[in-house]
Amino acid sequence: MTTPPPVRFRTQRKVRFADCDPARIAFYPRYFEMLNGIVEDWFEAMGWGFGEMHLKRDIGIPTRRLEADFLKPSFLGDVLDLELSVLKVGRTSVDLRTRFLCAEEVRWTVNQTLVLVDMKGLGAIPWPDDLREKLAG
Amino acid sequence: MTTPPPVRFRTQRKVRFADCDPARIAFYPRYFEMLNGIVEDWFEAMGWGFGEMHLKRDIGIPTRRLEADFLKPSFLGDVLDLELSVLKVGRTSVDLRTRFLCAEEVRWTVNQTLVLVDMKGLGAIPWPDDLREKLAG
Amino acid sequence: MTTPPPVRFRTQRKVRFADCDPARIAFYPRYFEMLNGIVEDWFEAMGWGFGEMHLKRDIGIPTRRLEADFLKPSFLGDVLDLELSVLKVGRTSVDLRTRFLCAEEVRWTVNQTLVLVDMKGLGAIPWPDDLREKLAG
Amino acid sequence: MTTPPPVRFRTQRKVRFADCDPARIAFYPRYFEMLNGIVEDWFEAMGWGFGEMHLKRDIGIPTRRLEADFLKPSFLGDVLDLELSVLKVGRTSVDLRTRFLCAEEVRWTVNQTLVLVDMKGLGAIPWPDDLREKLAG
Repeated sequence: MTTPPPVRFRTQRKVRFADCDPARIAFYPRYFEMLNGIVEDWFEAMGWGFGEMHLKRDIGIPTRRLEADFLKPSFLGDVLDLELSVLKVGRTSVDLRTRFLCAEEVRWTVNQTLVLVDMKGLGAIPWPDDLREKLAG
Repeated sequence: MTTPPPVRFRTQRKVRFADCDPARIAFYPRYFEMLNGIVEDWFEAMGWGFGEMHLKRDIGIPTRRLEADFLKPSFLGDVLDLELSVLKVGRTSVDLRTRFLCAEEVRWTVNQTLVLVDMKGLGAIPWPDDLREKLAG
Repeated sequence: MTTPPPVRFRTQRKVRFADCDPARIAFYPRYFEMLNGIVEDWFEAMGWGFGEMHLKRDIGIPTRRLEADFLKPSFLGDVLDLELSVLKVGRTSVDLRTRFLCAEEVRWTVNQTLVLVDMKGLGAIPWPDDLREKLAG
Repeated sequence: MTTPPPVRFRTQRKVRFADCDPARIAFYPRYFEMLNGIVEDWFEAMGWGFGEMHLKRDIGIPTRRLEADFLKPSFLGDVLDLELSVLKVGRTSVDLRTRFLCAEEVRWTVNQTLVLVDMKGLGAIPWPDDLREKLAG
């Protein structure tokens, strides 16, 4: 792997009782919920809250593709550092890499393509200029 | 792509209210919960119920890697056909491909590597012979 | 307690890995998801699918009140019998009692008031005549 | 209603995309997950983290009974104030009242009985003295 992309947005998320399974580790579908959460927070920080987007503008940013590597399990009570990087901004899409770490140990990495979509027709639409600029960093 | 692998296990799963989000489509983290469900059902059908595995034998089959393509959204009330294929059986792992379809339309495909793990030490362990044989089909 | 109300609708629901918590029993918020599921199935059986209701007619049936007794825990792999009874049909509401049993053992009982609501204004509205008749049994 | 009990523990919780349903309000089973979260945080603040309790001591605090009133719906993006009060400390149980508010508007109230349980036998056990003292406030 070459130089990692710079981190563009960070949050923390505790692994809660509700996130864990009978194997007593974080249940992996919950990782995707946490991932959805950091994307939600990041868009809100850019002035594009999900409430505004979905309820008022009828647009959304569904995931089109993702690749995830589960490197180490996470446990009840762990505090995860979520770090989001932008790999590429397309006309209607954006490629992200997000890593979950606990005390420097990388637990999970995911590369993900999001697409801006008109929720009425469910077709891809170009990023508005102001948002595209913010995505580009 | 060449000939698709034969389907080894099938289930159906309705897209319920609880699976959908304010964008009014299936919330993608729930797809992974459904995926976990078909793997659970398949292992149970092979005589390896998750209850027995996790609670009595202290073994599990966490996901190590996955790649997923979200081709079309799913809607409240859709009945999905889940089809699981085996791509490769390793010494301690198995590679699966699962597709979610609705009335022949492919909605979602996921390639996934599961690893058999001793939940105490969290290290990979070889498949028991009887299970390995069943995985191989 | 006097004679229990007659059961009006039944489903079965397996306690899955995704329903269980690190205490290795069913996580109680998931009981409410299962409860939502039987109500969804019952309304669909009466010709009022949630998709139709929420997406086309913009009406819903949120819960206004509930009382629940957790009598015995449920475990991974248990098959629960869900039994729904109607206690009372009001002008805009309905009172239900639902019980979850496993092999005759009552695990959970919940009394619940649902209200028919116009999702635009979020105000209560009267049951349409045909639905009211079906609710009344 | 008489004087409300004093608030003993507070947290905030944003209503996220993952918490909302196709009716575009918070999905009520998620309220119970949030409720589980504030209890988890409160016990941790008293020195009884759920990880320690469940994974090391094999004890838990399942809910035995609850009554909940859904007064107003919550929406994507709302920041909820969660306020927990202690109604009564029993030998093996504790009665709590928790309210969810948004900008002073009471959205949800729940009265709940938790029981300290030995997770091996699932029988109720008395509060340890130090914890009982903390519960009593």
